[in-house]
Amino acid sequence: MSGFRLTGMTSTPANSAQLPFVKAHGTGNDFVVVDAVADKLDLDAKQVANLCNRHQGIGADGLIRIVRSSEFEVADANYFMDYRNADGSIAETCGNGLRVFARMLIELGYEQMGTFSIGTRAGTVTATVEPGDVQFANIAIEMGHPRQSASALVGVTTDSGTFSGVPVFMPNPHCVVIVTDLDNAGSLRTAPALDDLVVFPQGANVEFIARRAAHHITMRTFERGVGETLSCGSGACAAATVWATHENLELPWSVQVDVLGGTVFVDCSEAGSLTLRGPAQVVAQGTLLGDSWTT
Amino acid sequence: MSGFRLTGMTSTPANSAQLPFVKAHGTGNDFVVVDAVADKLDLDAKQVANLCNRHQGIGADGLIRIVRSSEFEVADANYFMDYRNADGSIAETCGNGLRVFARMLIELGYEQMGTFSIGTRAGTVTATVEPGDVQFANIAIEMGHPRQSASALVGVTTDSGTFSGVPVFMPNPHCVVIVTDLDNAGSLRTAPALDDLVVFPQGANVEFIARRAAHHITMRTFERGVGETLSCGSGACAAATVWATHENLELPWSVQVDVLGGTVFVDCSEAGSLTLRGPAQVVAQGTLLGDSWTT
Repeated sequence: MSGFRLTGMTSTPANSAQLPFVKAHGTGNDFVVVDAVADKLDLDAKQVANLCNRHQGIGADGLIRIVRSSEFEVADANYFMDYRNADGSIAETCGNGLRVFARMLIELGYEQMGTFSIGTRAGTVTATVEPGDVQFANIAIEMGHPRQSASALVGVTTDSGTFSGVPVFMPNPHCVVIVTDLDNAGSLRTAPALDDLVVFPQGANVEFIARRAAHHITMRTFERGVGETLSCGSGACAAATVWATHENLELPWSVQVDVLGGTVFVDCSEAGSLTLRGPAQVVAQGTLLGDSWTT
Repeated sequence: MSGFRLTGMTSTPANSAQLPFVKAHGTGNDFVVVDAVADKLDLDAKQVANLCNRHQGIGADGLIRIVRSSEFEVADANYFMDYRNADGSIAETCGNGLRVFARMLIELGYEQMGTFSIGTRAGTVTATVEPGDVQFANIAIEMGHPRQSASALVGVTTDSGTFSGVPVFMPNPHCVVIVTDLDNAGSLRTAPALDDLVVFPQGANVEFIARRAAHHITMRTFERGVGETLSCGSGACAAATVWATHENLELPWSVQVDVLGGTVFVDCSEAGSLTLRGPAQVVAQGTLLGDSWTT
């Protein structure tokens, strides 16, 4: 594969103090991955939070459990991505996490390279890993159709000023601001204020983007409840959608999006469906030991 | 031991893409530990920074290399703690890291429980792990004599006001402020400003402490160049020293210091020498894989 081979992640019984894991990331969005296919090992919110704690656990943006889709009564995929946020709460899906999930399915021998389905709480998606992509540098995940609000622009205020943002739903809410230079966005140390609570009753992730070329942008993203992050998959899709409209790109188009943690590509089909392409990197494989993560 | 047993950390040749590691922490001050005793594997600054990167590596406050003291021409200890900061720069020592180092020496069979010496760039120190301390909850590290400046108090300004701080050198510089409530220290989102550049030509770590009882304080610490952290071993020693003077504690004294990441104890001998006691927890054992940490 890519200079190493994962050994089997043989899980131990739920009452054991040891838990095999992989740490992996997609453009800096990082995950602890647990293979629960064989033993169906579940983790409660506190265990997930302990594992994702960056100082007293392994540390990650989220935890990914690999389980058979039948566990979630999903029929159109073999495996299901059970995704939890770092605080232990349940999340529907995660674009960068899906690339990591797709790689893990192949590394563990559960799927073959090519195209396969993955179950998520937001529905079943298609993943493609080209057989020649031995570095897992270009994994493609079907992200669906963006939904753009018919409403007017939304005001976005940061510590450097007020901007006009375009609402896009992937289906999670994003507000995309085009700037001439990403530094114009300000520090992003605190959440940008949105002036439209009707469009965004539960807030939104905010993406600032700037031009590099007609099909190439650079992006900073502020995720709701998290802060500025190295990457956001659905945010890249929303950003590319707004950029394609701004540049009048003809279908099918492809836009390169440089994020702080790397580079992804967003492809839009003739039918307007988006695919997110990018790398999935495995950092380490190991065993979590009992005296920290279970207490 | 404590519900698990570390398997041997057999290092691989320096040109290999795989590197065995342990992730561990002392009261929330966390480390990637690499056993380089057998192969003398060294890591350059970029590799250390990659390993300590919290999103694209394992993530840690620092990296600890276990090597024979003879590698550093130190004669009065068997093993040497080669400590690096998260950015790859070299650090002299680390109080919380020494507890982790002491535990690892025992877990790996290099030392026996009891008292042994550890070489550091700041000199050789004595570690004690009581034979009954199977949880490694109370590892004692000799921290030496605090040096208090003869000068007056130093003004410390945060976003909540200006305070009077007491300079203490362990020998790294600390400025200790006694407050009635730790919230009075302010947000500590930015470095407290010190008004005395003669006492602290290179700045100082700042500790805010508040009383819980005559021999019990709670502490927040702002580390130079890092920010507010969960724990600081030398800071706890500096804080206890200032508190003992404030309370007129008689020698030998012991002060419990509650930090954000747990609890440590500082003991002062009749001769005025300090010992820092506290836990060392092992989170995980694993193998770093080549496609992330080496590039």
